[in-house]
Amino acid sequence: MTDPLPIVLLTDFGTHDTYVGQVKAVLTARAPGAPLVDLTHEVSPYAIDEGAWLLETALPFLPAPAVVLAVVDPGVGSERLPIAVRAPVPGDPTALRYFVGPDNGLLSAAVPPDARPSAPRRSPSPPGLDVRAIESPEARLATVSATFHGRDLFAPAAAHIAATGHHETLGPARDELTLLPPFAGRAEGTTIRGTVIHVDRYGNLVTTIRKEQLPQDFALDINGHSIEDMVRTFSDAPPGALACHVDSSGFLAIAEREGNAAARTGAARGDAVVLTPR
Amino acid sequence: MTDPLPIVLLTDFGTHDTYVGQVKAVLTARAPGAPLVDLTHEVSPYAIDEGAWLLETALPFLPAPAVVLAVVDPGVGSERLPIAVRAPVPGDPTALRYFVGPDNGLLSAAVPPDARPSAPRRSPSPPGLDVRAIESPEARLATVSATFHGRDLFAPAAAHIAATGHHETLGPARDELTLLPPFAGRAEGTTIRGTVIHVDRYGNLVTTIRKEQLPQDFALDINGHSIEDMVRTFSDAPPGALACHVDSSGFLAIAEREGNAAARTGAARGDAVVLTPR
Amino acid sequence: MTDPLPIVLLTDFGTHDTYVGQVKAVLTARAPGAPLVDLTHEVSPYAIDEGAWLLETALPFLPAPAVVLAVVDPGVGSERLPIAVRAPVPGDPTALRYFVGPDNGLLSAAVPPDARPSAPRRSPSPPGLDVRAIESPEARLATVSATFHGRDLFAPAAAHIAATGHHETLGPARDELTLLPPFAGRAEGTTIRGTVIHVDRYGNLVTTIRKEQLPQDFALDINGHSIEDMVRTFSDAPPGALACHVDSSGFLAIAEREGNAAARTGAARGDAVVLTPR
Repeated sequence: MTDPLPIVLLTDFGTHDTYVGQVKAVLTARAPGAPLVDLTHEVSPYAIDEGAWLLETALPFLPAPAVVLAVVDPGVGSERLPIAVRAPVPGDPTALRYFVGPDNGLLSAAVPPDARPSAPRRSPSPPGLDVRAIESPEARLATVSATFHGRDLFAPAAAHIAATGHHETLGPARDELTLLPPFAGRAEGTTIRGTVIHVDRYGNLVTTIRKEQLPQDFALDINGHSIEDMVRTFSDAPPGALACHVDSSGFLAIAEREGNAAARTGAARGDAVVLTPR
Repeated sequence: MTDPLPIVLLTDFGTHDTYVGQVKAVLTARAPGAPLVDLTHEVSPYAIDEGAWLLETALPFLPAPAVVLAVVDPGVGSERLPIAVRAPVPGDPTALRYFVGPDNGLLSAAVPPDARPSAPRRSPSPPGLDVRAIESPEARLATVSATFHGRDLFAPAAAHIAATGHHETLGPARDELTLLPPFAGRAEGTTIRGTVIHVDRYGNLVTTIRKEQLPQDFALDINGHSIEDMVRTFSDAPPGALACHVDSSGFLAIAEREGNAAARTGAARGDAVVLTPR
Repeated sequence: MTDPLPIVLLTDFGTHDTYVGQVKAVLTARAPGAPLVDLTHEVSPYAIDEGAWLLETALPFLPAPAVVLAVVDPGVGSERLPIAVRAPVPGDPTALRYFVGPDNGLLSAAVPPDARPSAPRRSPSPPGLDVRAIESPEARLATVSATFHGRDLFAPAAAHIAATGHHETLGPARDELTLLPPFAGRAEGTTIRGTVIHVDRYGNLVTTIRKEQLPQDFALDINGHSIEDMVRTFSDAPPGALACHVDSSGFLAIAEREGNAAARTGAARGDAVVLTPR
């Protein structure tokens, strides 16, 4: 028997309860020896888009092969499908990654941005992707609760893949899945409009504007503040000043050196940012 | 040598400090290779009853065999005993679980609800349970601090069991242990009185009323709010409405769909709930 | 091949984002099978001194050999060096520990307090220590971002040591490193002045005054409160009373029994404490 695959977890469960612990207990019981890696459990509650962005930006750094178990699931217990997706790994033709979670757009990172639709919708599964509906009774707990599919359904499915290396045994193939559009700013004439997709622990405001979209020189407006400084790293900004930088994710972000840009600007997740070339 | 047993952790230590990290460092040094599973470390500080409830509701999903290391210990350094309990696993006659922690009621889940007393008290150890006082000098650190038995005493004891599969070597048998009553609502005529035992990350208010106690149709009063809707899952409620559901733990809970019932009602852990049949 | 060494992590990254998760993903990919132990990720943002204190007080309980990956790095992307330090283990002449992180004083625990300078400064590397600048292109990701050396540079270096047992291959030897002074109160006549170095999850205020510095009988002043009770453990104090005790770290701390001393006194990290013998 080969070693079980690593299982990488991303949820909005928080760690205040035993929800994540119960998921890991099921994984440990059903895929003994599989390394468990917490990406984060603090996606904003019910925020599918933030979860999808966090997964997409972390993906290049994950081991391959690996199983990704992702749950942000406001529709738990409704008709949204539980799915398992097998996807190729960009840049490594011999490796595969598996994604397990609800079919609500959270798993969009399994599909490269340029193969995604221009608005969130159920989309044809692109070539190379293998999508399964999770139906096998062996890959779920004996009793499935109405509100905790992470434990009762997704964890057993992820453990099944990690332990066996197979996902096609989980259920029938599907020819479509729900995908979010690529995360990017929207060009309007010469300006670029984006939103704050994530506020990090330091109060840095990360936007949906990609570094490839940045003009040579620009001003960024957010919540009544105009920011004209662009720095390479935090220590290039004067202490206490707001400045833009390209985040380690490759997206434009706003930080205050050794301060908190979210508190300083009053901006929050979902707020608009407007970039104007100078 | 057989593989070390998984060790499942539940504490009120939080993760803001290195307390949990020091416990895990001791476990890693003394039981190398034992999988560590965090159930949660965010039990409300000193809340033995909440910790016991969180452990009891997660227990059916833990691996077996396994060691449970649980520490919510307001009496650390006082005369309360450190104990290790070996208990059978309901539904699996060949498996065993071990519980390590303070003898203050936190480990009540080692005993089925129907074998527990009607009020918190030191109780005779029921048949099938093996309770030990932790006394062996080999199963503690060379120096035991007055305030951190989790690291100095409970972690070495848990590592000892995980590494050796033995708990009876930890110290002499005890014929009693402190037990909490079963978590359940209290019937008063046709009404059922309970309390909020846990507020989860989403602001859901989980009560001590068990699903088996629910009448066909009822109203639930909490903190001046009366709730009459009972739903199977969150998405069956209108957005913004308060509704009751049976939580994944099997207890009655109050949620606001894609909202926060604790913020909405102002209710908190320990608050009373009253259920009246209709 | 021998088993990979355990890797112990301490950062100010928090767990709200995927920063820690990305670091662990890199460690899992590059040092498969290495046990990962989180000491804490909630060092106050940018607080090098608090991080150094948390590492120093946890160090005696870590496994040996082990790799410590510590990142509190306000100067990321500036000229501060990334370093890897090999240090002997006090009390165990056959064991070694490795420290990986920024050369900003955070890794001071690699050097015993009595070999550290009296103020924070770049200092000669003491005998027995082997300090390397991390330069090897094999021990970093192909692209190194300007703001996330934890993932791109420190994690690959730590994984390299854990997987190979070698740190000298990371880069050239250095004969100095940045060290903080020992954590201790400062004597002024008969009084001892210290600061609050850490506020823990329970609101306990831990000071820089070491237990070896305590007179037989004393009063402690903090933020307008004078505390005269010294107890061995929490339950020796009356409920609701402020009292001093020697923390499990060996430092003087202020607690309120089953309460929160930080909230009670309004004191915070960095505040002064003054101890006067009686």
